[in-house]
Amino acid sequence: MKTDVQIAQEASIRPINELTEYLGIMDNEYELYGKYKAKVSLEVLERLEDKPDGKLILVTAINPTPAGEGKTTVNVGLSMALNKIGRKTITALREPSLGPVFGIKGGAAGGGYAQVVPMEDINLHFTGDFHAITSAHNLLAAMLDNHIHQGNALNIDPKRVVWKRVLDINDRSLRNIIIGLGGTGDGFIRQSGFDITVASEVMAILCLANSFGDLKDRLSRMIVAYTEDGQAVTAGDLEATGAMTLLLKDAIKPNLVQTLENTPAFVHGGPFANIAHGCNSVMATRIGLKLADYVVTEAGFGADLGAEKFFNIKSRFAGLNPAVVVVVATIRALKMNGGVSKNELGYENLSALNVGFANLERHLQNINKFGVPAVVAINKFPTDTDAEIDLLKDRCEGLGVEAILSEVFTKGGAGAIELAEKVVEVCEKKASDYRLLYAVDGSIQEKITTVATEIYRADRVEFTAAAKRQIQEITELGLDKMPVCIAKTQYSFSDNPALLGAPTGFAVTVREVKVNAGAGFIVVITGSLMTMPGLPKVPAANGMDITENGEIIGLS
Amino acid sequence: MKTDVQIAQEASIRPINELTEYLGIMDNEYELYGKYKAKVSLEVLERLEDKPDGKLILVTAINPTPAGEGKTTVNVGLSMALNKIGRKTITALREPSLGPVFGIKGGAAGGGYAQVVPMEDINLHFTGDFHAITSAHNLLAAMLDNHIHQGNALNIDPKRVVWKRVLDINDRSLRNIIIGLGGTGDGFIRQSGFDITVASEVMAILCLANSFGDLKDRLSRMIVAYTEDGQAVTAGDLEATGAMTLLLKDAIKPNLVQTLENTPAFVHGGPFANIAHGCNSVMATRIGLKLADYVVTEAGFGADLGAEKFFNIKSRFAGLNPAVVVVVATIRALKMNGGVSKNELGYENLSALNVGFANLERHLQNINKFGVPAVVAINKFPTDTDAEIDLLKDRCEGLGVEAILSEVFTKGGAGAIELAEKVVEVCEKKASDYRLLYAVDGSIQEKITTVATEIYRADRVEFTAAAKRQIQEITELGLDKMPVCIAKTQYSFSDNPALLGAPTGFAVTVREVKVNAGAGFIVVITGSLMTMPGLPKVPAANGMDITENGEIIGLS
Repeated sequence: MKTDVQIAQEASIRPINELTEYLGIMDNEYELYGKYKAKVSLEVLERLEDKPDGKLILVTAINPTPAGEGKTTVNVGLSMALNKIGRKTITALREPSLGPVFGIKGGAAGGGYAQVVPMEDINLHFTGDFHAITSAHNLLAAMLDNHIHQGNALNIDPKRVVWKRVLDINDRSLRNIIIGLGGTGDGFIRQSGFDITVASEVMAILCLANSFGDLKDRLSRMIVAYTEDGQAVTAGDLEATGAMTLLLKDAIKPNLVQTLENTPAFVHGGPFANIAHGCNSVMATRIGLKLADYVVTEAGFGADLGAEKFFNIKSRFAGLNPAVVVVVATIRALKMNGGVSKNELGYENLSALNVGFANLERHLQNINKFGVPAVVAINKFPTDTDAEIDLLKDRCEGLGVEAILSEVFTKGGAGAIELAEKVVEVCEKKASDYRLLYAVDGSIQEKITTVATEIYRADRVEFTAAAKRQIQEITELGLDKMPVCIAKTQYSFSDNPALLGAPTGFAVTVREVKVNAGAGFIVVITGSLMTMPGLPKVPAANGMDITENGEIIGLS
Repeated sequence: MKTDVQIAQEASIRPINELTEYLGIMDNEYELYGKYKAKVSLEVLERLEDKPDGKLILVTAINPTPAGEGKTTVNVGLSMALNKIGRKTITALREPSLGPVFGIKGGAAGGGYAQVVPMEDINLHFTGDFHAITSAHNLLAAMLDNHIHQGNALNIDPKRVVWKRVLDINDRSLRNIIIGLGGTGDGFIRQSGFDITVASEVMAILCLANSFGDLKDRLSRMIVAYTEDGQAVTAGDLEATGAMTLLLKDAIKPNLVQTLENTPAFVHGGPFANIAHGCNSVMATRIGLKLADYVVTEAGFGADLGAEKFFNIKSRFAGLNPAVVVVVATIRALKMNGGVSKNELGYENLSALNVGFANLERHLQNINKFGVPAVVAINKFPTDTDAEIDLLKDRCEGLGVEAILSEVFTKGGAGAIELAEKVVEVCEKKASDYRLLYAVDGSIQEKITTVATEIYRADRVEFTAAAKRQIQEITELGLDKMPVCIAKTQYSFSDNPALLGAPTGFAVTVREVKVNAGAGFIVVITGSLMTMPGLPKVPAANGMDITENGEIIGLS
């Protein structure tokens, strides 16, 4: 089979204005960024305010394993298949970060015959959204340190500055730094650090903002530091909100591109899926729902993290009404969850599959708690045997859920026709009864405990002394009435990445709790967390190149 | 009079594809970035290889003072006037940096009725060139620190890493930092810092590259560190060149916008005018010369720094042949050079003007050394008296140079018709005899001494012990056969900013010498140098905002 970049470069890509025309976007409602990318104005939403929304399909997955699940690939393939069977469909995805592109992954825009294009542009700067976020974030940091340097009228405690800086790069040397060295004119000496841009609260806000005004309000509420007497200092207090919004004036607009089969694709925003909610922007999803019959979107990591946050954070804030959830599973990853080692995945193993199915089963039960019907997509690999596929289908049927093969990586949209037909059938026959898992007016402990016991199936939640103190502080600031955004390992339902399958009898330990008052959620950290990745011994960047005639090498 | 932003927003701006058509750029040779910006492909240059070049006009100025000279404004106004008198003209400018936009200046795209538009886009991210440079620069930094962290196969001396990081922001707290703190997985602890993006060698390279291949070659040659036995380690050694070039694949293409009167404008690249050469990109200038009869361009700071570097660095590398130099002067700034304090500039003072004229006179003599004819543009202010203007014209005439009023700030192109006619007349009647001031094969000391004595008119050059040692090291590395790029205060011919007018009897002290092997010049530092600005007590950012309907406040 050809490489991703070969397939992408051979695609019959259409000028993007043909897609805006197909979607009914007016000439004054989009701006071209080259021939194959456009930014769509938020005015579309106002113009189509009274038009009923299309159906919203969430693609999620079992807990990820090194064997791979192919969530984005299924997302892209399913949207192409829906178009093939006559449903006007938009795929809505997150933007890739430059960090992983040059680190390990080498690119992220689907794979095989289920990609979004132009993949090289999407993977490199794209329309500049992440750079705009980096600029806005770091402008605020510079204004904060400048405020301290110029006399500190707000009485900021330099030991309690919580606003770091960001870069869209994997750079471990910037995780922990000391700034402000030099002479008296060179700022205030303090400890600080850089996160990767996708970890910025500005990224989460850009992706949750419901309007331009909401963007500005949320930016204004971001807490950057505390005063010596414990009061929160916000971006608004530093008078940074207007300039930051100005820097984000185009970044807030969804980016329109296309799949290899010319299905419209909004690729917009990309917050972390642990300390943030891990979904593309609300604006992209909402505009998509006005323009199409179906919007197929996804959430980061497995359903315990991604779907939970999609429901309890994104859908809550945006007033979304998800119609169907597609849970992506592979035979290989289920066998890993059943105890098979990576080297043995190529061999048929029905008993391991049977054991590992418990992981999928629990995710399906969880989705049921949100009242949304589910369909399982089996992302087919060449090593899957018929007996394994039959077993998986049977087990799903036993739960009242249909499992359907997806072969989009090798066949494109044609590989997901049956899946698309099933999704349409469920949309038309089973009304979604979407409901939230908890109300925001409970205590922080209650909300964490609800997610940990209902979704992760922990027996109990333990809070470290530090976490208890932080919860008390947030509650005293009156900022506790927000949803919780729990950062946990993606590899297990528990907070121990080694516990595969469907573990029981464990406790979840909450180590740190902080409030993202602008994004509007409380970040809850279990285990250790990396917000600035490092480069591997041989970074993907080493193998990359572009020739004089534009041929790109090493992106995938 | 209206504010710059009011004037800009009321402009009758044309879709940029009307301008590409006017210039004869083919449909496949440009890409739109919104309706009013385009990136022009380097292929234009190949297609028009055999077409004779248009005339190249350099706009420079006397030494700047707080009174202001209006170099960019005259540049833009003159190009509009040339179009008005029937000469197809392109203006070529540098891109503004976000740092000063949010720091003190609040924007930079000309002023009054002589601006380039869309000014808000040009001032904010524009087409992403600076962000691409920031990304490429910092990817190299991350790869370097990662190399040390992962075993340091190249034997880099961590004390001799010369590659810092960059951000396009004014942030004094990042000038001097310690990186790599934390645990064993968090990199190598060493001292480092951030410069502003315009100070990056990548910026200088992007602006000097003669082709895509030349870009890659120059990036590869950049020295990032030295080994423990004193050998240079380059970006090429770190295998970073391909990935960096990939990140710059669009940034290398000139950006086409327009003036308020729809004159085509290339706004592309923006290197510092002290540690770098301070001119827009070679690609923009060269493509402009193929597309138009006249290209009007500029160089940063006064002619002692800007014009000297334009001639000895940019024109040398690009094989340019400047036809005329326009030297911008104001009565106010000449009076300051004649000893008048800032508060007294509004009053007629012929004797001070007479004294201060020595500054302009010396610049005109210097330009004569390069064999290029000069015209003086008097950038008119309301307080200028007829007697002052007559005196200035007389003094210029005494040197055989015509001085002509420019009123472009208040009148646009109509305010520079006479200036435009004079420029055309000089182009047609006085053949330029452009020559370089020195050959690169002299020693570093000789080249520095030539510029310091011939242009600055120093009696002698003093080299600190450190500078002598650095010169010796560069020479031993065999990298001394390059032009010198001297960083000196812009306010005086000397290295003492307080010496206005035309000082004599002074020494220039060279404190530091380093080689930018990729850019291809030797940086010579006199006095202290700031490569990362700070924010003022009340940053321009504080007053900025954008309303829900897109009205922008605080950019100017």
